[in-house]
Amino acid sequence: MVGRKKNYNIVIEGGTLLSMVDGEEPVDDARVVISGDRIKEVSVSHNNPIPETNEIIYATDAIILPGLINTHCHSPMVLFRGMADDLPLKTWLYEHIFPAETKYINPDTVYLASLLACVEMIASGTTTCIDGYFFADEIVKALHKSGMRALVAQGVIDFPAPGVPDPKKNLDVASAFLERWMHFSDRIIPGIFCHSPLTCSEKTLLRAQEISAQFDFPLQTHLSETQEEVTEIKQKTSVRPAFYLDELGLLKSNLIAAHAIYLNEEEIDLLAEREVKIAHCPESNMKLGSGIAPVAQTLEKGITVGIGTDGCASNNNLDLFAEMDTTAKLAKVANLDPIIIDARAVLAMATIGGAKVIGLENRIGTIEPGKKADIIIVDTHSPHMTPMYNPYSQLVYSATGGDVRDVIINGNIVYRDRRFTNLDSAEIMDKVTRLCQRITV
Amino acid sequence: MVGRKKNYNIVIEGGTLLSMVDGEEPVDDARVVISGDRIKEVSVSHNNPIPETNEIIYATDAIILPGLINTHCHSPMVLFRGMADDLPLKTWLYEHIFPAETKYINPDTVYLASLLACVEMIASGTTTCIDGYFFADEIVKALHKSGMRALVAQGVIDFPAPGVPDPKKNLDVASAFLERWMHFSDRIIPGIFCHSPLTCSEKTLLRAQEISAQFDFPLQTHLSETQEEVTEIKQKTSVRPAFYLDELGLLKSNLIAAHAIYLNEEEIDLLAEREVKIAHCPESNMKLGSGIAPVAQTLEKGITVGIGTDGCASNNNLDLFAEMDTTAKLAKVANLDPIIIDARAVLAMATIGGAKVIGLENRIGTIEPGKKADIIIVDTHSPHMTPMYNPYSQLVYSATGGDVRDVIINGNIVYRDRRFTNLDSAEIMDKVTRLCQRITV
Repeated sequence: MVGRKKNYNIVIEGGTLLSMVDGEEPVDDARVVISGDRIKEVSVSHNNPIPETNEIIYATDAIILPGLINTHCHSPMVLFRGMADDLPLKTWLYEHIFPAETKYINPDTVYLASLLACVEMIASGTTTCIDGYFFADEIVKALHKSGMRALVAQGVIDFPAPGVPDPKKNLDVASAFLERWMHFSDRIIPGIFCHSPLTCSEKTLLRAQEISAQFDFPLQTHLSETQEEVTEIKQKTSVRPAFYLDELGLLKSNLIAAHAIYLNEEEIDLLAEREVKIAHCPESNMKLGSGIAPVAQTLEKGITVGIGTDGCASNNNLDLFAEMDTTAKLAKVANLDPIIIDARAVLAMATIGGAKVIGLENRIGTIEPGKKADIIIVDTHSPHMTPMYNPYSQLVYSATGGDVRDVIINGNIVYRDRRFTNLDSAEIMDKVTRLCQRITV
Repeated sequence: MVGRKKNYNIVIEGGTLLSMVDGEEPVDDARVVISGDRIKEVSVSHNNPIPETNEIIYATDAIILPGLINTHCHSPMVLFRGMADDLPLKTWLYEHIFPAETKYINPDTVYLASLLACVEMIASGTTTCIDGYFFADEIVKALHKSGMRALVAQGVIDFPAPGVPDPKKNLDVASAFLERWMHFSDRIIPGIFCHSPLTCSEKTLLRAQEISAQFDFPLQTHLSETQEEVTEIKQKTSVRPAFYLDELGLLKSNLIAAHAIYLNEEEIDLLAEREVKIAHCPESNMKLGSGIAPVAQTLEKGITVGIGTDGCASNNNLDLFAEMDTTAKLAKVANLDPIIIDARAVLAMATIGGAKVIGLENRIGTIEPGKKADIIIVDTHSPHMTPMYNPYSQLVYSATGGDVRDVIINGNIVYRDRRFTNLDSAEIMDKVTRLCQRITV
């Protein structure tokens, strides 16, 4: 378990700083001073004497930026990475994913798989994630142990699910989960994740929002991920999904809608008015052949949009650098407009945008004094990052997660010179490999 | 300069082999024996005694596959990586790229930049590329020095161009280029690259094909990269671009059409009938907002399609792993069909497909006895590659170029344990960085 070292100071010295504070330009030869879990000072080094500190991280030939925030993830699904690709959606889900979940998802496998997701996320620069799955207690334990910050939600669906054999009790399980973890750690926020407006009844959706509002926590749901979902909801309710959720009172500023592909103009306006947040998952949407979300249009209406990888079974990695690249490029080609969204805007979605999605914009998402020290350092001394004219472009269009060199979360160095300081990644990989050798679906 | 060591033998031992030979399944615990520049034997190791050899490369926890083939690239454009992103196409081209080329492209910068492209390509598993640009002699020298295999083409355009101030002489320059390099090395094929049907006259196009056919070399051109190109060609000739090129006699089996986005059904049929090859460049097409090429439809008609990165100014890297991922995902979402193209088919495009594009399918593109030893080894011992159910999925959907550990080209180990054996990548990066500090457009 990573504990905060209250009086431990770190200085990051040199390198190009992208604070991601609105209106601030990149700063070359930067200095960032961290004290305990917070950022104390951001300045230009000017070769001034380095203040007394416990540790110096030199960042020459590197970019310093806020840790990335993955706004939609099902961590334990790393177990099914590449298990059943290139299949029709229903075959994939009903003949592979659901049976595999029934057979292999239990508290032990969820804990182990979540640890693997953590090492993958940390090694690719993600410091905070929004997760939703079953046996969520185990996800909390794994994410907390890794040192990451997270919103972890207990999955709710009106079918028998891993750990929740009786769907009538799904909200009791979720409620108890919230109570168990609400005061546990300032790095962990518990929440509820309703699977979708199709797989949860009106009553379930309504009650999930009531409980979430009562605890003042975010509520997640998949929304309009497929055309079929829209058609079925319309058949059932005579309105489109966003209006259906609005009638139920679900559309509040604490709602995080994942995917949000099939939105018409009225739905975009409605989501904007209700201050609903969107988790944009372009690679999963592409790989499953679901569709292209109107991300530029939702941003234009002022909706807060973060970027998510979705689960590893439909991506197949948790690399937000790849996801940023795809976010920009897909919006450009979908609109046949190369200027519709630029690299800085995409990086903002993956940092301060993600912080807003989770409701933590006053604590994380930018590098400025007083905020929590969630900072990553990206190595630029490699062929594919040379030359460097524009650090935003370089991160979004040239980098991959493998370029991340150091990761600091909550003032703790969890990854230094591409090595974990508190997790045995080789052991975790080995255990997952041995587990998955038994998985056949 | 990399010389072939005639009697040097290498054994690759262990690991999962993807031969990419039609109908062959992955082989676990494989052994590949290389003798001189050729593959001598492919078998299962079974812990049999390793034959006497000069070098053993252990590939446990790794995938062994044919080197990737980048079918469309302008290597020297790495100089402009990230220089002018997120701009309208014409602003990008006329206010940034063309002026930068005029000011900064000369034999020295082309040579240096091409070396940087080589280290980037090799480090991400590309062993062969198809290049087209100006001062192509310098590209030949750099690519040959790096140890790569390449089709290098001299650019032809009916405007003043770098190294070709008088466009009337563009084909004389290209002809002389072909003669100069045609017998130089069995790793280098010289060629002609006509910029596009809009920027080259009928006469230029016709003559370029005559010369190419006479030398029996491939001819490259951009084709239907934008809707505007189609409109202008139709206005000028009253037919669509593919039919215009066919009337000129350009559509032959040696023609490599890059991008090929705006093709209607008749044009696809025509290209298939004429056995024209396509270089599919999805990331560049997305980033420039050009459009989505009908790659599944062209493959379905039996057209040979390879994958290309395009130049670094519009991508912004030369990583074919990213390009494979995008090829699959973009086709799926464009057709709202998750099964339209699978991971193995995409890997085939990037290996044996690329070999067919260049006309080298009898020498490279698969791992089988008698073929040239162009082989890469991809490390799978990392969080984002764990667990592994399906090596094709893992390479296409989970891997990045950074996972490449070893690269063998023509029987020479040019990259071993992520280090170059014959290139000083740090020096090359340093020189490019210093050069580009002077570049302002």
